[in-house]
Amino acid sequence: MESDQIRLRPIGRIHSPHRDPHKTPIQPVWARGIAGRVEVFETFAPGLEDLEGFSHIHLLYYFDRADGECLRVTPYLEDRERGVFATRAPSRPNRIGLSLVRLIAREGRILHVEDLDVLDGTPLLDIKPVIARCDLREDVRSGWQDAIDEKRATRRGRRQEPC
Amino acid sequence: MESDQIRLRPIGRIHSPHRDPHKTPIQPVWARGIAGRVEVFETFAPGLEDLEGFSHIHLLYYFDRADGECLRVTPYLEDRERGVFATRAPSRPNRIGLSLVRLIAREGRILHVEDLDVLDGTPLLDIKPVIARCDLREDVRSGWQDAIDEKRATRRGRRQEPC
Repeated sequence: MESDQIRLRPIGRIHSPHRDPHKTPIQPVWARGIAGRVEVFETFAPGLEDLEGFSHIHLLYYFDRADGECLRVTPYLEDRERGVFATRAPSRPNRIGLSLVRLIAREGRILHVEDLDVLDGTPLLDIKPVIARCDLREDVRSGWQDAIDEKRATRRGRRQEPC
Repeated sequence: MESDQIRLRPIGRIHSPHRDPHKTPIQPVWARGIAGRVEVFETFAPGLEDLEGFSHIHLLYYFDRADGECLRVTPYLEDRERGVFATRAPSRPNRIGLSLVRLIAREGRILHVEDLDVLDGTPLLDIKPVIARCDLREDVRSGWQDAIDEKRATRRGRRQEPC
């Protein structure tokens, strides 16, 4: 399996106001209220039934415009290198992105979402409901992220200062 | 892009005590304390640096033994069909699994984890740190899952009654 390839295909596309990678908020938490649409292709639309009952969803998508794969990266919030798996940076092996967004409404195969930090046109790979009993934890320790104060994180997260 | 294929490859392998799909707990929350190892292949090991500071990680993996793709499924916790994207069932398009597990320790390219609900030998696609400010929400509404009482969810989640 080590050498085996896994083939995926987009199940939809994410539409957002973010056109410039350098101005895109780096996590949903810094994209509060930013609205967009998740379009699911016709073929996969029956899979969306019952999703509207959930207030939040995980979008899994493909960082199609990420720079080349890099195992050590300088995260947006810091000025030093970290292992890529200790960050959510796009230039990771397999380039899968994960964003927890707010689901506002479903209109057929279109999901209206908020807190969207994803580049316009990004290929969608999967949608998973956020389930309180599965996804929330009370005792989370966030490694190097814990040392970054809220003010700085917010400023950098919203791209209000150069990283 | 609709027809374009995306090619991924395993970056490691998940080792767990779960050998039988029908006895594997269905979410980490029902696999509390169950220990396992995440092996990251040598090539990708430098990406693990700094991960040990995080108490929890997201494992993204490939459901390599899932049944065929199905857009409507009967979730383990219920006796009626739901759209697959309103569930975390394995037989989804693109077959990507997501589990939030506890990181106990890192020994080089081996991660010792707990709360593991993944079948032994599953190919690993990505690891992301769980970051309190990004991943926790206080106002989560969990759709059809909210109607399932804790006792029943626990019994079925742990596979203590037939689904």
